Amino acid sequence: MIVTLTTDFGGHYVGIMKGVIKRIAPSVEVIDLGTDVQPFDVKGGAFVLYSSYKYFPAGTVHVAVVDPGVGSDRMAIAVRSRNYYFVGPDNGVLMPAAKDDGVVEVREISNRRLLLEEVSGTFHGRDVFAPVAAFLAKGGEFAEVGGRIEKIIDLEFFRVVGKGRAEGEVVFVDRFGNLVTSLKEGDLEPKDECVIKIRGKSFRARYVRTYSEGREGEILIIKGSSGHYEISIREGSAKELTGLSVGGRFAIL
Amino acid sequence: MIVTLTTDFGGHYVGIMKGVIKRIAPSVEVIDLGTDVQPFDVKGGAFVLYSSYKYFPAGTVHVAVVDPGVGSDRMAIAVRSRNYYFVGPDNGVLMPAAKDDGVVEVREISNRRLLLEEVSGTFHGRDVFAPVAAFLAKGGEFAEVGGRIEKIIDLEFFRVVGKGRAEGEVVFVDRFGNLVTSLKEGDLEPKDECVIKIRGKSFRARYVRTYSEGREGEILIIKGSSGHYEISIREGSAKELTGLSVGGRFAIL
Amino acid sequence: MIVTLTTDFGGHYVGIMKGVIKRIAPSVEVIDLGTDVQPFDVKGGAFVLYSSYKYFPAGTVHVAVVDPGVGSDRMAIAVRSRNYYFVGPDNGVLMPAAKDDGVVEVREISNRRLLLEEVSGTFHGRDVFAPVAAFLAKGGEFAEVGGRIEKIIDLEFFRVVGKGRAEGEVVFVDRFGNLVTSLKEGDLEPKDECVIKIRGKSFRARYVRTYSEGREGEILIIKGSSGHYEISIREGSAKELTGLSVGGRFAIL
Repeated sequence: MIVTLTTDFGGHYVGIMKGVIKRIAPSVEVIDLGTDVQPFDVKGGAFVLYSSYKYFPAGTVHVAVVDPGVGSDRMAIAVRSRNYYFVGPDNGVLMPAAKDDGVVEVREISNRRLLLEEVSGTFHGRDVFAPVAAFLAKGGEFAEVGGRIEKIIDLEFFRVVGKGRAEGEVVFVDRFGNLVTSLKEGDLEPKDECVIKIRGKSFRARYVRTYSEGREGEILIIKGSSGHYEISIREGSAKELTGLSVGGRFAIL
Repeated sequence: MIVTLTTDFGGHYVGIMKGVIKRIAPSVEVIDLGTDVQPFDVKGGAFVLYSSYKYFPAGTVHVAVVDPGVGSDRMAIAVRSRNYYFVGPDNGVLMPAAKDDGVVEVREISNRRLLLEEVSGTFHGRDVFAPVAAFLAKGGEFAEVGGRIEKIIDLEFFRVVGKGRAEGEVVFVDRFGNLVTSLKEGDLEPKDECVIKIRGKSFRARYVRTYSEGREGEILIIKGSSGHYEISIREGSAKELTGLSVGGRFAIL
Repeated sequence: MIVTLTTDFGGHYVGIMKGVIKRIAPSVEVIDLGTDVQPFDVKGGAFVLYSSYKYFPAGTVHVAVVDPGVGSDRMAIAVRSRNYYFVGPDNGVLMPAAKDDGVVEVREISNRRLLLEEVSGTFHGRDVFAPVAAFLAKGGEFAEVGGRIEKIIDLEFFRVVGKGRAEGEVVFVDRFGNLVTSLKEGDLEPKDECVIKIRGKSFRARYVRTYSEGREGEILIIKGSSGHYEISIREGSAKELTGLSVGGRFAIL
């Protein structure tokens, strides 16, 4: 069985979570799904999980720890969807993925016997989420996690699609400075040229199918590997040129 | 059986160490404990290992390669503690963790038959530490590593605790700019407010239990997940504000 | 069986590739060989693979995705060498490693039944290379990958060795700023001092066997762990001092 980790921290904090999981469930395999989420970027973390979860074998337990509210009274939750488990804070980070797969049941993590003996106020990845994920991955009963709940925090990517105009937001920035957007297949009518409006400024852009069709320095609109449109510059950084980061809004005309 | 890696290098140098281990011990699992140590930062590497080692299953072999003296006459050592093995250079990087668990025996790595055929002057992680870790993880006899030794280099985190005043040093800086310090539970008497002195400058700070209790921009003293006090700013970088990095000293009044 | 990944992207894109492989071949182990390649740096990726591949067990499938031409008409290829498989784009990134081990056979990846159902124009790591690697790692027949080909793109590191003078290029820059060069054992006659010429400027340098022999701030020529000479500065960055990056040429006199 597999547990994946999506976090806005890296290094030995991720290493510690792996140790905790291996102590509880020695035969479980732990895989970094994405430790490239920016600090406190709940939306970016949600997109990472949403665009990746379904490539893993059914039954995989996906843990996401992007958790600016750790130690406050935000709930810790576990979600059972059609094919997967999701474990993390109740701040929306799990929801785009879980809803995409189809939510079956949500439970608050409240069974103290599943957690580390001492629960810190700052690292629930280690003390709460890793042990619960290990418990589920080794076949533990979902209902033992805690009581069933209905009301949790949702997260939706901003997206308004009209005639000849679509508004969206950046949901992830990759290492190359490509801006992955909330706009999906069908939201745009690919035509030769278009205009991107960002905070009053206008940029000319062109639809292409692959990066290699772009000319150097040109702004491109391309259907990215996640099925979402991306704003890119061939061998350049669209992030730098436009100044947009996660949550930044724009319109395409 | 598990081998963990803590290094101040990343990328394919870590990948090569994994290859070496898998060739010697195919069923051993290799886990990155922390490859987020700053270059040459022996103290930071020591803290990473010390604050993480015990979350792994008993019998785990922990390798730490933060090794500015590689190729000099510094010894390569293996330490057997109550529950773990530690393998690395004799520069103190292993000691806070090994002493915390209880040192049983230290041996110099001198058995050439355990090493790669050609030992380079620059990459003992590959040529010395990885093969010895693989040997131990697959059940090799500890005594075969080399002769027993008593005198090795120690490393202690700086810490002077007096009445109403505690001096310490930064032992790790995380990705968020939080400063993890050498001061532990009991070293400070949490009260509402305190003053942090850094190179003549004074900063007001407040004790909190979780990041979420802090107001934006405020300097916080918080008991971190390692049990050590941290100097933090909610959703900001204490490193930038104070100018402190690993080894930087301060006093709390 | 092991699949290794060498990429110029990191984070969840690598995570997705692992998911794809585990779905197809659950018992295969996936190891990051090197995800520290700079964006679009085919030469650096080729060096990472070339200097690391042979430390892995025979039969390992090495995947390299440094692929600025993704979505163009560049071929996707699989190479069988004496002891390994190599999978990646036909842009030379696989060749220094494959030739070093001895190329047995090259095939174009053209069997659509092995790929993900929908092949994107931007992420062949997920849609093409990961599934083919999983197929080979679980014992799939090499000939099923696609038709045999003879003509592929080669990549050689620039290297001209003459009497008392050797010209080379930088093939990798590590995290410390050390410049790994194309010059190998035998290309230089180590003597006490030498001169490095870079774009008209001359730098004095000294041959040493280990970093620890260097004086602080001094430029060093050292035989690196890969058997290639490196230009280094003890506890400093040769990259910053010289301004060289991958592909940058120099002469040593």
